[in-house]
Amino acid sequence: MDLFEAIEGRRSVRSFLDKPVPKELVMRILEAGQLAPSAGNCQARQFILVENPNVKRKLCEAAWNQEFIVQAPISIVVCADELRSSSRYGERGRRLYCILDASAAVENMLLAVHGLGLGACWIGAYQDEKVKEVLELPDHLKPIAIIPIGYPAKQPPARPRLPVEALLHYNRYGGKGYL
Amino acid sequence: MDLFEAIEGRRSVRSFLDKPVPKELVMRILEAGQLAPSAGNCQARQFILVENPNVKRKLCEAAWNQEFIVQAPISIVVCADELRSSSRYGERGRRLYCILDASAAVENMLLAVHGLGLGACWIGAYQDEKVKEVLELPDHLKPIAIIPIGYPAKQPPARPRLPVEALLHYNRYGGKGYL
Repeated sequence: MDLFEAIEGRRSVRSFLDKPVPKELVMRILEAGQLAPSAGNCQARQFILVENPNVKRKLCEAAWNQEFIVQAPISIVVCADELRSSSRYGERGRRLYCILDASAAVENMLLAVHGLGLGACWIGAYQDEKVKEVLELPDHLKPIAIIPIGYPAKQPPARPRLPVEALLHYNRYGGKGYL
Repeated sequence: MDLFEAIEGRRSVRSFLDKPVPKELVMRILEAGQLAPSAGNCQARQFILVENPNVKRKLCEAAWNQEFIVQAPISIVVCADELRSSSRYGERGRRLYCILDASAAVENMLLAVHGLGLGACWIGAYQDEKVKEVLELPDHLKPIAIIPIGYPAKQPPARPRLPVEALLHYNRYGGKGYL
């Protein structure tokens, strides 16, 4: 699939067919995530692949009962590794860089999912402490996305976007004149 | 360009030809950013396009004198909009969601840059307060990336990555058995 077709066609998919995701595709998604850039190439991110029905159920409860987490054959929980980032960059690493490292990986993974004919959604609404408990995460891992993945039951329509013009500034905040 | 070719071929480019970036390409990059997902479709991100030589110089100084900011014909500074996110999601929006919204946009933009035959680098090392001062940012905008963009003077080699296996856990932290 063409890059821009992937960027334009990606949707947040929240309903899935009852059909497993082949391991080969899961690996391509994870590898796409690992190819994302990171601050100082620290790669301060870790991935928890969830397939066990009991764990999916508990993850769903930790995410305010978003039921499509149970419906999806797998979820990938992407975590920011605060320890890896802070050991090199101190507080700025712990509070910012590892979140950026993990987020960049998530976006690559969402594009890869779409490019492979699958669907996914970036879930950010969950209770951190409950997710950490369910997945037995150590203190230094901060979950920044739950990504349920599967074959889409339907392709949602595009959500509207603000035009770039509404968010663009030239040389300083409020600066006009580029367009 | 194929999606996976873009993900695999993207590099952090830090030297540029003395050749302007056509406005049409800049707009495609910005639009790719705006097509990234965001929490609740809030799109809590703003873009400052920097082209003015004096502003580039000051931005370079705010970023610990990374000289390629001056060399690049343009930079896009991507900001997390804490106000837009917090007005809907409170403290979680202010501290997390707007950073994710902005980061996802950055990664889409970096891929678009590469797909268009340009080069860029995600700079995260800068003094926030100085960047805010140079760009006259209001308090609620947090810069999360300076992205110098131009035609690459050279394509850097790939940086090594940890294998996915080293970062992958199955059903719980430390869980084995998927691979």
